[in-house]
Amino acid sequence: MEPDQIRQLTELTAADAAVRIAKGEITSVMLVEACLARIAERDGEVMAWEHLDPAYALEQARAADERRAHDTATGPLHGVPVGIKDIIDTSDYPTENGTPAHAGRQPGDDAALVSALRDAGAIILGKTVTTELAVFHPNKTRHPVNPEHTPGGSSSGSAAAVADNMVPLAVGTQTSGSVIRPASFCGVYGLKPTHGMISRTGVLMQAPPLDTVGVFGRSIEDVGLIADCLTAYDPRDTWMRPRSRTRLREVALQDPPVDPVFAFVKSPSWNEFAEDVMKEAFSELAEALGEQCDEVDLPPVFNAGMTMQKLIQAADITKFYGPILAKAPDAISKGLAERIVEGKNVSAVDYNTALDVRETLYAGLEEVFERYDAIITPASAGPAPKGLESTGNPAFNAMWTFLGVPCVTLPLLEADGMPFGVQLVGPRFDDARLLRTANWLTRHLTAAEDDN
Amino acid sequence: MEPDQIRQLTELTAADAAVRIAKGEITSVMLVEACLARIAERDGEVMAWEHLDPAYALEQARAADERRAHDTATGPLHGVPVGIKDIIDTSDYPTENGTPAHAGRQPGDDAALVSALRDAGAIILGKTVTTELAVFHPNKTRHPVNPEHTPGGSSSGSAAAVADNMVPLAVGTQTSGSVIRPASFCGVYGLKPTHGMISRTGVLMQAPPLDTVGVFGRSIEDVGLIADCLTAYDPRDTWMRPRSRTRLREVALQDPPVDPVFAFVKSPSWNEFAEDVMKEAFSELAEALGEQCDEVDLPPVFNAGMTMQKLIQAADITKFYGPILAKAPDAISKGLAERIVEGKNVSAVDYNTALDVRETLYAGLEEVFERYDAIITPASAGPAPKGLESTGNPAFNAMWTFLGVPCVTLPLLEADGMPFGVQLVGPRFDDARLLRTANWLTRHLTAAEDDN
Repeated sequence: MEPDQIRQLTELTAADAAVRIAKGEITSVMLVEACLARIAERDGEVMAWEHLDPAYALEQARAADERRAHDTATGPLHGVPVGIKDIIDTSDYPTENGTPAHAGRQPGDDAALVSALRDAGAIILGKTVTTELAVFHPNKTRHPVNPEHTPGGSSSGSAAAVADNMVPLAVGTQTSGSVIRPASFCGVYGLKPTHGMISRTGVLMQAPPLDTVGVFGRSIEDVGLIADCLTAYDPRDTWMRPRSRTRLREVALQDPPVDPVFAFVKSPSWNEFAEDVMKEAFSELAEALGEQCDEVDLPPVFNAGMTMQKLIQAADITKFYGPILAKAPDAISKGLAERIVEGKNVSAVDYNTALDVRETLYAGLEEVFERYDAIITPASAGPAPKGLESTGNPAFNAMWTFLGVPCVTLPLLEADGMPFGVQLVGPRFDDARLLRTANWLTRHLTAAEDDN
Repeated sequence: MEPDQIRQLTELTAADAAVRIAKGEITSVMLVEACLARIAERDGEVMAWEHLDPAYALEQARAADERRAHDTATGPLHGVPVGIKDIIDTSDYPTENGTPAHAGRQPGDDAALVSALRDAGAIILGKTVTTELAVFHPNKTRHPVNPEHTPGGSSSGSAAAVADNMVPLAVGTQTSGSVIRPASFCGVYGLKPTHGMISRTGVLMQAPPLDTVGVFGRSIEDVGLIADCLTAYDPRDTWMRPRSRTRLREVALQDPPVDPVFAFVKSPSWNEFAEDVMKEAFSELAEALGEQCDEVDLPPVFNAGMTMQKLIQAADITKFYGPILAKAPDAISKGLAERIVEGKNVSAVDYNTALDVRETLYAGLEEVFERYDAIITPASAGPAPKGLESTGNPAFNAMWTFLGVPCVTLPLLEADGMPFGVQLVGPRFDDARLLRTANWLTRHLTAAEDDN
């Protein structure tokens, strides 16, 4: 394949690719071959993929093309390749959870979300790199723009692969800041939907009240498109409730009835962690939005949000990873081993109280959403920091994860050639309107830029 | 009213009373007057009622009779009086939770189940006595057959009032053994439905994974009748799931397609706690059932069931009652205060692990239910013990509460004039079949007795 053709194909959004495949303008095999060529060229440096079998990926693509030829295409992602974080079970690829303790682990079943992707016609291209057990200890992935910088974590490979045009879509998870932060650092769209909207059956559990499946794409339409395929009710995930089918993609593309208004919330982490470039970017942003944006201070009680997120995560890391440490003590990093020991000290009373406080805080947040369409707030402290020894600070994510609210990050900011994101936060289960607001904001700011 | 008429009216089952009121053979006022007369005669000794306003009860009855006269009767309990445990919020009666710390507490809203009862046409006769905060510390109620004995607890007043014909129906709650044990002691039918089947919105929380609303009546039909009125989905109780409407009463009265078979499970408490009279009664029972009953040993892992029930209850008592103790230390009994302090030591890891173990144990129990219609097991260690300083041992209830399975106790046994119950246990959400099996067993054993 010619470099130009590879470039054109790998730069397609998933929505465009799906339409072209449906029309017969391109085939799934062409698209997958282009992705594989891009990966062959770039992954020696980026190292976004943990398991990838080109022959098997092409076999799936050929089967998709054949179904299309027989007019039995299966869904909105027919023939489109997707990357899957390596803590999400796949029956065809190993799932090693980013730890040598699970080396060679081959699940017998697909996670519910992987089945849903196959039902939607997607090609499971391969498994993307995760940090150790989706906590903080970094893995091998590097930032696609500058390999001396972290891509963020824990969904490091998913964010980097989409950013580097290796695959149009990828799936990750967020327990503290593991979708929004790497998406911000890598300069892609990331959606962490409302907690409980996507099934976690077959996904490594770290902290059930927090664990949220999220998605990466290179357009708002794309994150809506893939998320729509994943929201079917799964009674095996006891945090889910039956709900009507989502129409995220459709609503995302609609014009809002009136121009949305934003609550600029600096969040309790602003003073301690916000970098200067990010502060400057947000002043400009607020200015550009003018009367459509008010700075809103959350009551001091929200300062507890991040502490409580940490408390729940600490206790559940011990519960879920304690048995792994006990079985394979040498396979676990020192830092994680320490946290596994520490988490024993969290009392059941404090844990359950934190879950109650979450509902109290959310009730306070709902008052904000009565007056504003979305909260606008940093997706990360700034651009991806230099160095690979850390995946960056989740301080601008943990509270929102705790509150279970949908978050989307938009790659609208940049400093010294490194991208970073604007995060929008909405009320629970109103993810569709959040994407519509995000789309409006993206168009609004892009138009403003074009005017300058 | 003549003593004979009072007797006839107060001995009616709720189902019979509802039919007679609907036909105009009796009025709600007559029935409520008879109940009030019975209470006036007997409650000085039994002390089952905490709050009861005769004038207000009659006012409700008059309104019910008027609606009937205008053909606007509202539901299956139209005109039938019900007693409500005093930890269940009522907007018209105080709800003091059995503690001086809540003396004079008047809720602004009805609990969801009280609203449901009103919608079904029931008369909220009054509030029944509970132990302190529905834990173990006894209150004033005495056994209706022998006032030197405990009626059981914590739903002491509800069980005693129904047993003593003061009211045909009452509602209680069970966190360890607080419905089945007092029903067994007092000699009435008690149903603790599957956990998550009746909303607990507006009910004092003690331990959400365990707290279960239950009902008392003098026939199987009656417990089905009232439970059917209470099972509507309430999204505010996050442990509930939407389900189709229950038909407990209807199914309870059907003939089983084949004679049911029973697994006689002694449960891990048998050796330590079972009294001789109860052991004898169960040998006879097993003999009477012959080939329809096999003794089944649960695997040793079930020994952990009661320990884990206690662990969850301990932690949640601290969470929910700690603030009450902090605010009113002198109002809390010494025993409960100690438990509130102890519960702080339960770790979040142990608590959440117990919730996982529950599902593992339940999976083991499901194998029993593949071969047997119901488990037959003691409802209590024996009849109500003498003395009012304890409400008896929940050892034959705690594990089933932990497992969330439906339990019904049938007043089929007796020793020295004191009744005690046979408990049947079924698979989760198959409460209707459990009642049908219970009805079969009651008829079968009564017929066998008549033959002798």
